[in-house]
Amino acid sequence: MPKIVNHEERKKQIAEAMWRVILDKGMEGATVRNIAEEAGLSLGALRHYFSNQDDLLVYAMTLVQERATDRIEAVAKQNLPPKEMVLAVLLEIVPVNQETLAEMEVWFAFMAHVNHRREELNIPDDGIVTGVHKIIAYLDNVGLLKEGLDLDLEMERLYAIIDGIAIHALFGAGRLEAERVKKTLQYHIDSICVE
Amino acid sequence: MPKIVNHEERKKQIAEAMWRVILDKGMEGATVRNIAEEAGLSLGALRHYFSNQDDLLVYAMTLVQERATDRIEAVAKQNLPPKEMVLAVLLEIVPVNQETLAEMEVWFAFMAHVNHRREELNIPDDGIVTGVHKIIAYLDNVGLLKEGLDLDLEMERLYAIIDGIAIHALFGAGRLEAERVKKTLQYHIDSICVE
Repeated sequence: MPKIVNHEERKKQIAEAMWRVILDKGMEGATVRNIAEEAGLSLGALRHYFSNQDDLLVYAMTLVQERATDRIEAVAKQNLPPKEMVLAVLLEIVPVNQETLAEMEVWFAFMAHVNHRREELNIPDDGIVTGVHKIIAYLDNVGLLKEGLDLDLEMERLYAIIDGIAIHALFGAGRLEAERVKKTLQYHIDSICVE
Repeated sequence: MPKIVNHEERKKQIAEAMWRVILDKGMEGATVRNIAEEAGLSLGALRHYFSNQDDLLVYAMTLVQERATDRIEAVAKQNLPPKEMVLAVLLEIVPVNQETLAEMEVWFAFMAHVNHRREELNIPDDGIVTGVHKIIAYLDNVGLLKEGLDLDLEMERLYAIIDGIAIHALFGAGRLEAERVKKTLQYHIDSICVE
């Protein structure tokens, strides 16, 4: 390998190869051998970066999470009006394009794969609970929430809507398209906000 | 094998053995060999009922779906007041006890496993879209829905809430307990219904 390739860059390339293998062959096809082949590396070279499949799995999950966080931070900096900003942030989480659909598919494949042994692995949090707390607190702070809402249950409800929409966009065989995802989220935000 | 065992009964036992293996070892442990061992059958005997893992997978998914449908129909026959009935039906879908948690875990393991080739397999629908349509139409028919709601988007929103709650109860490492699931669903139903 040329030394010019940064260690972290190489790890990212391997994780991205893992994503592609999962999207193409499912989690059961995501063997270290297949991932090495997809990444154009020998098994030995791959093991230099990740000593086993679990290390790679946790790293690849973390990377999915970091990318989503980066996109959300970019949206938050755009100085949109509050309701538009909230909707724009939500649309970076739920799958409305090929990139976010792929991320979500990989994330669910990971979760289904590791769930029965999540105690032994150091699974990254997807950060959505924290994000949803921030969104509800933000709408409250700018005075947009309707009177009499239970903020704690609004958080739980919005969190459920986000992940429910995400899995329906993913597993729904095309029923829930991007436009309908947007309408549903807009409808929900409007239902908890004053005009 | 004793002839007294009915063919359908035996198929159910095998599917249930598959569920247990998935709950214990994850989808990657659900090999035909492991399932046969869990069911107390030889590989040959298992193949008499299911010629390959895909046949067994589709059958086991169908069985999860049928069980949930049976429970919901039983609730619907109980003649509860409308809002209570709706809540009781929802609580048969989302995981609030060991049985429904296990069903949901198996269902998501199935979905994550088959999603990338769902076109070639005959995957049963989970029936929740239809159920949610019925719930919203029912609340509308008995005059309980608030004025001015968009019934189509209410359907989409309730559907998202159900599956979002389901995955949070499942993957949330104990954060979302049964009591909080009930409160959130009750809160949502109250928010779209008149007093």
